[in-house]
Amino acid sequence: MGGDNAPDMVIGGAKLALQRHPDLRFLFFGDMAHLSPLVHADRALAGASEIRHTDKTVLSTDRPSQALRQGRESSMRLAINSIADGEAQGVVSAGNTGALMAMSKFVLKTTSGIERPAICSTLPTMQSETVMLDLGANVDCDAENLVQFAIMGAAFARAVLGRADPSVGLLNVGEEELKGNEAVKAAAGILKAVDLPLRFHGFVEGDDILKGTTDVVVTDGFSGNVALKAVEGTAKLYSSFLRTALTSNLFARLGYLLARPSLQTLRDRVDPRRYNGGVFLGLNGVSVKSHGSTDELGFAHAIDLAFYMIREGLIDRITADMAQFSHDAESLREAVGT
Amino acid sequence: MGGDNAPDMVIGGAKLALQRHPDLRFLFFGDMAHLSPLVHADRALAGASEIRHTDKTVLSTDRPSQALRQGRESSMRLAINSIADGEAQGVVSAGNTGALMAMSKFVLKTTSGIERPAICSTLPTMQSETVMLDLGANVDCDAENLVQFAIMGAAFARAVLGRADPSVGLLNVGEEELKGNEAVKAAAGILKAVDLPLRFHGFVEGDDILKGTTDVVVTDGFSGNVALKAVEGTAKLYSSFLRTALTSNLFARLGYLLARPSLQTLRDRVDPRRYNGGVFLGLNGVSVKSHGSTDELGFAHAIDLAFYMIREGLIDRITADMAQFSHDAESLREAVGT
Repeated sequence: MGGDNAPDMVIGGAKLALQRHPDLRFLFFGDMAHLSPLVHADRALAGASEIRHTDKTVLSTDRPSQALRQGRESSMRLAINSIADGEAQGVVSAGNTGALMAMSKFVLKTTSGIERPAICSTLPTMQSETVMLDLGANVDCDAENLVQFAIMGAAFARAVLGRADPSVGLLNVGEEELKGNEAVKAAAGILKAVDLPLRFHGFVEGDDILKGTTDVVVTDGFSGNVALKAVEGTAKLYSSFLRTALTSNLFARLGYLLARPSLQTLRDRVDPRRYNGGVFLGLNGVSVKSHGSTDELGFAHAIDLAFYMIREGLIDRITADMAQFSHDAESLREAVGT
Repeated sequence: MGGDNAPDMVIGGAKLALQRHPDLRFLFFGDMAHLSPLVHADRALAGASEIRHTDKTVLSTDRPSQALRQGRESSMRLAINSIADGEAQGVVSAGNTGALMAMSKFVLKTTSGIERPAICSTLPTMQSETVMLDLGANVDCDAENLVQFAIMGAAFARAVLGRADPSVGLLNVGEEELKGNEAVKAAAGILKAVDLPLRFHGFVEGDDILKGTTDVVVTDGFSGNVALKAVEGTAKLYSSFLRTALTSNLFARLGYLLARPSLQTLRDRVDPRRYNGGVFLGLNGVSVKSHGSTDELGFAHAIDLAFYMIREGLIDRITADMAQFSHDAESLREAVGT
């Protein structure tokens, strides 16, 4: 029931995702009277779906703590509960981000060894796409948090993007070893010292994100959120300037008509709906946040992400990688006698 | 002598800036044999310039501490010294950023009340342009630092961009009061409580930078640097995608030819050379860092910035604003009894 165009775009997105992945099965939580005709309008979707009625919803204005206390019967909470109950393997929601994170954390619990879950997403790059985290869950991060993000981001890149040996960069204000705050410098030290299922590239800078310098970009939730929104803002400014330029006079409009198919390819390449879906990593269950203002195409992509995470057993991989890391880090600490 | 195309682009930039501002006078520091023919090739420039020979330069690979100790006779150091000696009113360099900052700080000293100088620049927005700081001088900032940046950024917006009553936004991961780390929350509290020569807008997010939501965007040097470079990287990615799209087939190329004048206007609008020049704010003197890889057009813009800062008495304005703020903050502390 969450998001600007819910539940219509949620159901529409499920229909699209089901066409791509016929193995998918859906549990929809929300207002039966509203959901039922939408689901039953498509025979394939109706056959793959079950609706659970609730008239309670989490509002976009609810504080996370408020949603946790008062939203026990909400569609969002019941959807997350269905994972803990073993009925579902993942949840996708376009609702209140803070509430979804708080409830997911409360119900699913964090993976062993992970102190704080992170929000992770993919972004388009020159070559293909890159994985970035944390995008806003943790405004203050220490070195341990950043190392955990690196391990989770690399597991995501292997499982969801199929990168066999993902490279990981730590976002910083320069590439030299001396640069940066204490957290990134200490994290770099750990990532260099411990043998992990990733290639540690070293520091990367803000322009490396879309350059695709590394498969994974790791940063704290403050810088990550600022960078992500700065990228989105720049893309919007460019689109707006381009639109103005290509409609400014008759020649430009004619030129636009001729170049339109090529420009459409460009538009598809950077279409934010193709990158919709903020994944909560570090929980014992798959929880994906869709942008609230997306449409069914965007929501289908968020479902795709959840599907790949489940199919590739991402949670188990992260748990295994973290166990290995904790073991290695322990040995290392013993070796250096601290 | 600093920068990829120095000293040719430095001299070329001075020539352009002199055409715009005939009152300008230049002291060039560097290799006389190299500089002299370049300066004397233009009669107007030769008449407005003096060359001071030195064969020592700061290298782009020098550490700031190294440059400070060993670069006492370098062109960069002598140029900064000329401000302290009362010969010049500002310095512009395309050389080593860290060295320029360290030397400027050492020679010029920080403005009374300013703990740490910041790097400030302008960026294009939907409407016009915005001022942003810190862009990388201070990776860790507390609330006091951020407040000082706000005061300096607002003074810059008034003096250089002519904004009579500049609005200031604090960069954060959300607009709600509860969001963010301790530093931004405490800084917001101070900016709300004290009467300053600026309009405090509240929190802004990464996409507000280029939206032009506020005249000034204030943040720590880590997030600021990451955001600036993320913006630059996105702009480059878009330009690259656009170039590919408009050369991908015959129709697109024809369309491009027709739309070219309009697209050129777009390109001019976001031309990074128009925004070249990182200003060190918080020092008792004007010190401007040009991008190392710029050309004479870009370098001329960096000189323009220094010129406006000097003509409008920016340093005195910041000093006065800081004195007023310290006085008010003191009264406030007395009033609340801390």
